[in-house]
This record gives sequence, structure tokens and C-alpha cells, in this order.
Amino acid sequence: MNEHTVKAFDEDIGELRGLIAQMGGLAESAIDASMVALKRHDLEAAARIIEGDKEIDILETEVERLAVRLIALRAPMADDLREVVAALKIAGVVERIGDYAKNIARRVPAIRGDGHIEPLSLLPAMAGMATDMVRDVLDAFAARDPEAAQRVCERDRAVDDFYNSIFRTLVTFMMENPSSISQAAHMLFIAKNLERVGDHATNVAEMVYYAATGRHMGERDQGDAVPLNGNAE
Amino acid sequence: MNEHTVKAFDEDIGELRGLIAQMGGLAESAIDASMVALKRHDLEAAARIIEGDKEIDILETEVERLAVRLIALRAPMADDLREVVAALKIAGVVERIGDYAKNIARRVPAIRGDGHIEPLSLLPAMAGMATDMVRDVLDAFAARDPEAAQRVCERDRAVDDFYNSIFRTLVTFMMENPSSISQAAHMLFIAKNLERVGDHATNVAEMVYYAATGRHMGERDQGDAVPLNGNAE
Repeated sequence: MNEHTVKAFDEDIGELRGLIAQMGGLAESAIDASMVALKRHDLEAAARIIEGDKEIDILETEVERLAVRLIALRAPMADDLREVVAALKIAGVVERIGDYAKNIARRVPAIRGDGHIEPLSLLPAMAGMATDMVRDVLDAFAARDPEAAQRVCERDRAVDDFYNSIFRTLVTFMMENPSSISQAAHMLFIAKNLERVGDHATNVAEMVYYAATGRHMGERDQGDAVPLNGNAE
Repeated sequence: MNEHTVKAFDEDIGELRGLIAQMGGLAESAIDASMVALKRHDLEAAARIIEGDKEIDILETEVERLAVRLIALRAPMADDLREVVAALKIAGVVERIGDYAKNIARRVPAIRGDGHIEPLSLLPAMAGMATDMVRDVLDAFAARDPEAAQRVCERDRAVDDFYNSIFRTLVTFMMENPSSISQAAHMLFIAKNLERVGDHATNVAEMVYYAATGRHMGERDQGDAVPLNGNAE
């Protein structure tokens, strides 16, 4: 590659990083906003979150176009190619995090926000843990910092534990409040969505680690957290 | 492109299609197997499904490598590039369908399969509808048939309706059987996973349509199905 090509590549990859940072910021804000909408039972805010998700989708399409153009025109090798492919995949994951915010917003009408469901207060704390992971892993991507990425992975267990605790709390709540079972079921799905946001942050961390080092972080278990031995049965 | 290049491209894209067909076959079988394991409460079969998911992941990695090599070496334009990018994305979606099978398998230990939860009998029927969509959309991909892809999309509503009906049935069941709420909650998640399989088949259908025609099928709503006005509250 001559100097001109290298500079053009660096500019393109910088643009990719910028787009992904923008997507990540929107996805985090959407999760935070969905928690506020939920607590306030704010249907208009929920509608805005659902509508706003399109912006993230458009940015993902831009990342795809740019990444494919970059691979086709500049034929990057080894480290550079790994980074472009990582950017492409990370954009896909961030888009899915945006989808979770949208899915949570869709459940706002189904859940009364007047505080009569006590476990509702646990969800924003769980959301905060998950969005912190998203922000930190995107910072690690921007800084090409594999150690920071690894530290994000280590926090996924805490999110899983929080999820398992909410699952048990909600099952107990359902047994004691049969008339609120439908609302509690929607909250179960929201908790599961947030648990998945943590999983996705972990997936991104693994991609960042691989892009930066060329090595895999080691096999880790990333499936659905399934609490067994719950309160019922 | 000279004749040699065209032939090499055709061979590569044929290999991509072959890998995706293989992934699709494995993902469908895994969903079917998860339903059998669930009905029989077969923990060993569930463990095999979880283990078998790795094979799908490996195939996805192969698709990625091949697609990136194809873009970098052959710099395909327009129609051809669209098809390679579609293959890359479809592989990602099929991998997620495999993950749903794994997630269902993980819930097998939490659900007693002795028929005392009547709504359990609804899940295999729903799974059949969803896997039929997956098979038909991958056939449409193999045949580059945009009309067949469109017909798959039209069936997603039936899966969503089925899901909403199961949601209501399970909520009612929970109210009447508080001691089985935890098991029923796991079944809710399984139903949601199957509903997502239908959504993903729809996403693939849109990619197949776009790859074959260069046009988008038109904006469609693909979010979480959220049943409102359920039986409770």
C-alpha cells in the first residue's frame, strides 16, 4: 500500500468508528429513555423511542455500505481486514441493542407505571448496569483496548445474577398477585431484554478483543440465563 | 470480468449458498429436536442440542471468511455484491435461529414434560409453523425467488397470532395454577423464542427479495409481538 492508500484507509476506518459510536450513543439513550417511559407510563415517550429506532437502522446500513466499499476498493489485509469485519459485526449487534429498547418501549402501554408493581423499581438499576457495559465496550472499541474489553465481559455475570433475582421476584409476585400476572409477564420479558443487552455487550467485547489482538478471548458461555430452582416448583 | 473470474465467482457463491443451506438444515432440526426434548423432558437430548449449536457457529464463521475473501479478491459489483452481502447477513440470522433452539433446550430441565401443563401441547405446533417458514425462505434464497420470499413474509402474522394466543393461555393458566407459574414463565419465553424465529425468517425473506430484485419489499413492522388487552388486568 502506498501512503495515499493508507491515509484513505485510515480515514474510512475512522468514519466507521464514528458511525458506530453514534449508533451506540443512540442505543444507550433509547434504553435509558425506555426505563423513564416505563416508570412514568409515558405512551408518547414510548412512541418516540419506537420511531427513533429507525435512525439506528439507517446508521447500520451506512456502516455496511462503507465497510463493503472499503473491503472491495482497498482490499485490506490481516489486521485491517479484521478491524473492518469487526466494525461490520459490532454495528449489527448495536442495532439489536436498539431493537431491545424498542421492544421495551412497546410494552409500556401494557404496564401501569403507578408503582403498584413493586419489582418495577428493579428494572432501571438493571438497565443501568447493562448500558454501562455497552458504553464501556464501545469506548474499548474506539481505543482498541483489549484489556478494557475483557473487563466488560467480567461484568456480564452480575447482570445475569440480577436477571435471575428479578425472575424469582416476579414469579413470587405473580403467585401473590394473580390479577397482575399479565403485567408481570411483560416485565419478565423486559428483564430478559436487558439481560440480552449485557450479553450483546459481552459479544462486542469479544469482537473488540479479537480485532485488537487476533486472538479469541476463550470460550465463554453466552446463552440465555435460565434460572432453575426458582421459587415455584 | 473475464470468463475465468466469472466462473470462480459462481463457484464461490455456490459454496456460500451450500454452507447456508447446511446451517439452515441444522437450525431447523435443532428447533424440532428441542420440541421433542421438551415434551419428553429429555435432558440428554437437550444437552446434545446445546452442544450441536457449535456446529452452526463454525459454519457461520466459514461463511464470513468466504464472503470477505470473495469481496476482497473478486471485488464484485452491483447484483453480485448484493448477493454476497445478503449471504453474509442471512448466515448471521440463521445462526441466531440456532441460538433460539439452544435457548429452548436450556429450559428443558425447568419444565416437567409429563403433560400436567396443558399449554405445552401448543408449542410444537407453533414451532412447526416457524420452522416451515425458515425452510421455505432458505429454499427461496437457493432459488433466488423473490415471490416465494414474499409469500413467507405473509405467514409471519399467523405465527404472531399463535404467540399472542399462547401468551393469553399461559397467563390464564398461571392465574389458575400459581404453583406452576415458574414453569409457565419458562414456556412464555419459549413461545417468544419461536415467535422470533418467525420474525427472523421474515427478515431473511426481505434480504432474499432485496438480493434478487434490488428493491426493498416495503416497510414492514417486525418488532416484538406484544399482546395487549390480555386476560389479566
